[in-house]
Amino acid sequence: MAGWVKKPPDVRRNELLDSAQDLFFSKGYEATTVADIMEQAGVSKGGFYHHFTSKDDLLEALVERMAARALARLQPILEEKGLDAVACMNAVLSRSRQLKAEDAPVIRATFDIVFRPENVALYHRLNRAVNRVMMPLFVDIITRGKMEGRFRIDDPTTTAEIIVQLGASTYNAVARAIEAIGTPQADEAAAALDERLRQHGLAIDRILGLPDGTLVYSEPGFAKAVLNVPAGRKR
Amino acid sequence: MAGWVKKPPDVRRNELLDSAQDLFFSKGYEATTVADIMEQAGVSKGGFYHHFTSKDDLLEALVERMAARALARLQPILEEKGLDAVACMNAVLSRSRQLKAEDAPVIRATFDIVFRPENVALYHRLNRAVNRVMMPLFVDIITRGKMEGRFRIDDPTTTAEIIVQLGASTYNAVARAIEAIGTPQADEAAAALDERLRQHGLAIDRILGLPDGTLVYSEPGFAKAVLNVPAGRKR
Repeated sequence: MAGWVKKPPDVRRNELLDSAQDLFFSKGYEATTVADIMEQAGVSKGGFYHHFTSKDDLLEALVERMAARALARLQPILEEKGLDAVACMNAVLSRSRQLKAEDAPVIRATFDIVFRPENVALYHRLNRAVNRVMMPLFVDIITRGKMEGRFRIDDPTTTAEIIVQLGASTYNAVARAIEAIGTPQADEAAAALDERLRQHGLAIDRILGLPDGTLVYSEPGFAKAVLNVPAGRKR
Repeated sequence: MAGWVKKPPDVRRNELLDSAQDLFFSKGYEATTVADIMEQAGVSKGGFYHHFTSKDDLLEALVERMAARALARLQPILEEKGLDAVACMNAVLSRSRQLKAEDAPVIRATFDIVFRPENVALYHRLNRAVNRVMMPLFVDIITRGKMEGRFRIDDPTTTAEIIVQLGASTYNAVARAIEAIGTPQADEAAAALDERLRQHGLAIDRILGLPDGTLVYSEPGFAKAVLNVPAGRKR
């Protein structure tokens, strides 16, 4: 243990997050204890609880960090020249899918934790954390779409709030697809999730006052590409 | 204590729910212990844990019972002659508002518990319970609206899932209105919630493919009528 080594708080916090992420993937979330994380990061008990109140709290911070990193890779799209709000939204959705496919093992491992029935409260907590990080991006694009006269909406912040919250309505479809992994129904459940995501995109078109099918929220094969990979940890 | 008196399990369960409801309103949720509930209901520890795993679990059952009672008073609307799906949906929304106004002290007391920041996980748990109870009603109406050619939607179950989940997007607006109660900003926050609910109704119009303003989701003064009453328990 090197818990007494003086480091800036942010560095310590990130080391704790890195250690926890490694352990969650190698041992599994349930099997990893706060003591394991402290030992791997070389941080004292006081050091851990200075940054996090619990293991769930740390997982929320980990998911928040993942979302912030994704946001950093989506944000430049808003600066690209010649994109109207619709093109911008579609570029964000497309890059999001690409990031999810690249990070499939991590996403799969995270989903394996949060989509357990007993972890539904944790799911909503993490979902809120992601939405908090992503809200400003959507407010920006929706404000632009309203100014361009393309999005027929009243208040961009309310509309963004509605759209990000809508994500949670896919819970059952995602849970079913995860449960089916490794069974003969896996492909069918993944295709059902793709179709569910398409209808999700349709709801967002409607809320924004766009013609049906304007926003591309999913593609056939997307759910399978993200879910049917080995999770980035021992099962 | 009369815990040894033999009664059918359903009767016992309802007595536990009644006792808990009384105590939550008189003492407050946080201050009420499982032991208090057992004593008031005259039920042994084994009897309590036969029905519920915890106080939160009992609260979920209580909210589920409230939702089931509301559903029983909404269901007859679907049997009324001469209502198309739009009229039916508006009648359900209007009767819901009426029930909420009648039950204002109970709703206020429940909101005082679930909208505390530390209880956000409980909020989502209770919200899921209410949605589970209400889903079949919405699936019925939406199926009818699709058959009538009035609702432009694909799958009624998916659409119902999206619409009930959308409710959670009003969390921040409700939380702000509750927080403002008793302050000079109370009326303003209640009016902001009314406006937020109006926009919520607009989103549902759009998702169903109806002209804006078809469904009446709120009325000016509604939020104030429900929230600005003394909660049905000591504060």
